[in-house]
Amino acid sequence: MRRFVIGSARSLIERSRQNYQFQRPLLSSSYRLLSSTPAVDSPSSSSSTMAPPVALNTINPKVIECEYAVRGEIVTLAQKLQEEINTKPDAHPFEEILYCNIGNPQSLGQHPITFFREVLALCDHPTILDKSETQGLFSADSIERAWKILDQIPGRATGAYSHSQGIKGLRDTIAAGIEARDGFPADPNDIFLTDGASPAVHMMMQLLIRSEKDGILCPIPQYPLYSASIALHGGTLVPYYLDEATGWGLEVSQLKKQLETSRSMGITVRALVVINPGNPTGQVLAEENQKAIVEFCKQEGLVLLADEVYQENVYVPEKKFHSFKKVSRSMGYGEKDLSLVSFQSVSKGYYGECGKRGGYMEVTGFGADVREQIYKVASVNLCSNISGQILASLVMSPPKVGDESYESYSAERDGILSSLARRAKTLEDAFNKLEGVTCNKAEGAMYLFPRIDLPEKAIKAAEAEKKAPDAYYCQRLLTATGIVVVPGSGFGQVPGTWHFRCTILPQEEKIPAIVTRLTDFHKSFMDEFRG
Amino acid sequence: MRRFVIGSARSLIERSRQNYQFQRPLLSSSYRLLSSTPAVDSPSSSSSTMAPPVALNTINPKVIECEYAVRGEIVTLAQKLQEEINTKPDAHPFEEILYCNIGNPQSLGQHPITFFREVLALCDHPTILDKSETQGLFSADSIERAWKILDQIPGRATGAYSHSQGIKGLRDTIAAGIEARDGFPADPNDIFLTDGASPAVHMMMQLLIRSEKDGILCPIPQYPLYSASIALHGGTLVPYYLDEATGWGLEVSQLKKQLETSRSMGITVRALVVINPGNPTGQVLAEENQKAIVEFCKQEGLVLLADEVYQENVYVPEKKFHSFKKVSRSMGYGEKDLSLVSFQSVSKGYYGECGKRGGYMEVTGFGADVREQIYKVASVNLCSNISGQILASLVMSPPKVGDESYESYSAERDGILSSLARRAKTLEDAFNKLEGVTCNKAEGAMYLFPRIDLPEKAIKAAEAEKKAPDAYYCQRLLTATGIVVVPGSGFGQVPGTWHFRCTILPQEEKIPAIVTRLTDFHKSFMDEFRG
Repeated sequence: MRRFVIGSARSLIERSRQNYQFQRPLLSSSYRLLSSTPAVDSPSSSSSTMAPPVALNTINPKVIECEYAVRGEIVTLAQKLQEEINTKPDAHPFEEILYCNIGNPQSLGQHPITFFREVLALCDHPTILDKSETQGLFSADSIERAWKILDQIPGRATGAYSHSQGIKGLRDTIAAGIEARDGFPADPNDIFLTDGASPAVHMMMQLLIRSEKDGILCPIPQYPLYSASIALHGGTLVPYYLDEATGWGLEVSQLKKQLETSRSMGITVRALVVINPGNPTGQVLAEENQKAIVEFCKQEGLVLLADEVYQENVYVPEKKFHSFKKVSRSMGYGEKDLSLVSFQSVSKGYYGECGKRGGYMEVTGFGADVREQIYKVASVNLCSNISGQILASLVMSPPKVGDESYESYSAERDGILSSLARRAKTLEDAFNKLEGVTCNKAEGAMYLFPRIDLPEKAIKAAEAEKKAPDAYYCQRLLTATGIVVVPGSGFGQVPGTWHFRCTILPQEEKIPAIVTRLTDFHKSFMDEFRG
Repeated sequence: MRRFVIGSARSLIERSRQNYQFQRPLLSSSYRLLSSTPAVDSPSSSSSTMAPPVALNTINPKVIECEYAVRGEIVTLAQKLQEEINTKPDAHPFEEILYCNIGNPQSLGQHPITFFREVLALCDHPTILDKSETQGLFSADSIERAWKILDQIPGRATGAYSHSQGIKGLRDTIAAGIEARDGFPADPNDIFLTDGASPAVHMMMQLLIRSEKDGILCPIPQYPLYSASIALHGGTLVPYYLDEATGWGLEVSQLKKQLETSRSMGITVRALVVINPGNPTGQVLAEENQKAIVEFCKQEGLVLLADEVYQENVYVPEKKFHSFKKVSRSMGYGEKDLSLVSFQSVSKGYYGECGKRGGYMEVTGFGADVREQIYKVASVNLCSNISGQILASLVMSPPKVGDESYESYSAERDGILSSLARRAKTLEDAFNKLEGVTCNKAEGAMYLFPRIDLPEKAIKAAEAEKKAPDAYYCQRLLTATGIVVVPGSGFGQVPGTWHFRCTILPQEEKIPAIVTRLTDFHKSFMDEFRG
């Protein structure tokens, strides 16, 4: 956690120190707490008793330092409980485990968009395309789209490695989709298709980080992919705190302070990560705010790494998603003014196709020589998976008015998005009714990040179990209710405050029961520890 | 190339020095020579004239140092020629570009195995599974298999993130396939499903390499994924030369010498990479040889990284593929004796499904604590793509005698493998008839790696163009014939020798014309430069 200890204002530094003096023993002496592997499933029984030929203290320390809370200890425990229920249905006071730890909609019953899956199936097995039975099974426009995509693939070979940036015709489609979204030109040669957004983030970190003297400005709380990737590549995470009191506001003054402090400590800040809509915090940035961020990056020569994977997930009428590319172009800034990378994924949005591992980054404002290096790194892994590439093109060019699938497609899409909005509101209201809990709106993304004021006795009980207080709360919640959430300490939070991240993804008909379970648990937890 | 300069015997060191004095200016001053990006396709036109906000000399030097020849300069030139032919069909003295640079069978017209694609399509769009038309379009056993796979996926959700090692049921199937292949137990918890073999190799390099003081023993010639990955992770490639005179033999005495030399230079050698069947060299190791390698790794405490992606590609009756796991278990060595990682991919074999990015590594002989670290790194990227996971399970459990698809499946498989064997032999014979060319057998894999004795005048001509002599030959071959091969300098070779790698993958009916074109080109090249 040393890499977190850069504070911008003195008070922040002091609070950080206080915080990390508290958290560090928990985090470093037992990384298992936040990021270990499922004891049940991962290590084979045979290997657990051996004298290891490769000792833990001989492996890359960057790997050991890296942490990833979203699949951490709580999930391991949840998997164990699930197995116990499988064997003995009444082993616990709940019938099923509810995974609210990760934005994985289809694991909780969300159905895929039919049109997308039709096209994927046809591209997987194109020999059925001109069979008569296929007309009865697939929509006409999915057949037409599959033909169009196959014609964009050299030799129609969906089983061949593609260009290392992805199939050119699919990149054309994606660029056209970006243009339609933004009203500004997009170049297919700026698109790098990737196996989800995560490898794209790693690629940029690998490119930018030379040593721990290189820093990356990251929001706190943040999606822990960023802290993990920075740790794996040996850089320094420079935190900037989002302001919970103003709905997780992003203050440019805060960015400036942290940048100055870093520089005074000899850190070269290379990039700013902005997650919009926010993860885990769910806020949607206002356009004016985005302009100030763009201006900051331009003036300070920072690469803007814009995580825009939740661009379709906006739930409040007063907010709208604007891409940073659109914002910067609308300010008159072009290639020469700002290095900007936008990350997009098929895992989120209304599609939620996490298992397909599709995504892209749009890379603008880099010189040709650096672009060649990005291409080279992409080429070492040859290409991303073709189904994911196809799906990335589909989400950026869904059926249009007049297409046979349009009505069913838009009904599916709107059904999912409006239900997510209702679920977000219901959960937000429920959290805000709990004693000592305050919860900002999920304006977008897929999460709520309520703050809990834990009683002193609960904090002591957590210390006694060598757990962070929020981790302790989450574990108690799990064992009492089967609900899996991720402690705020996995994302970072202002020292002395405690949170957890809860997805809004359980099926809508289950939400009332979840609210009841949560409320009952919280009440009894508070009763147990109230001073 | 400094990382290559470890020679075991004095003569090797001297030859290395001589070699790198010669090659280094070419390789380091213009990495473009071997690994640049397509000028046509990659950098956007707008970015090529700008003052870059991120200067090349500020990016991670490990990225700059990394090289990947398989998609290097020759391929860039080929793409340019292809575009010229598209615009003007008679622009060049050939009608098409023949990509023999990369093991990408379906790009050259190989058809996918029908059964595999049926199952993938059904898993992509399961709602058609119980429609009556589906019976007419899909084989009964593909429908049955799709149901079985869906039942192994929690909630039948092929669009959900899976367990970070891959879906448990699919790992069960793969483990059963390994057991059937080897006759020794395999544990599904040892399997990590990955997006092709490349990310698995990166994962192990990331785990093992702490600094440039850590070395990895790699064959020379080698598949450049290894040199690229070692460079990206900041380690040192410790070369061991395969002996061309004995059909690319792997001498354990050579391994020992290189290990000792490295140790005397303060390098900690952590692992030995063995590619079997060989890439680019095509040899299949004899079992006795494998036993000696296992013994060496055990005695020296090295991790054995076994690249076994060509396990199905063996073309000569006198050789058979044996996995290193089987060999080590047959020697009585278990978990405590040897750390062994076996890499497998759906991109190779008779299936050649490169675009699906499926693969796995089987990790044995590591302690539970290190295994947890591997799991943690896998979890940061959440999971590999589900279609690739499904396909990996299918190649390890294809249709069996009695299944409806068995006959068509085995006809497809045998047709591909026997045709590959014929193509390998025809090309090998053709190379051996060329003046100054000698070519070992492709016993396995997908490549021939002929050696060319280039005339002194050709070497001078190459120097004048600042190219390695083999790169010069390959470029001339391309512009004269449209055939794309990769210069030996991209794989490493004994200093002063020159080679190229040519896949055996063009369609069989095209082979005679390729042989004629190659032969004519070579003759005129030799006529031009003969002393």
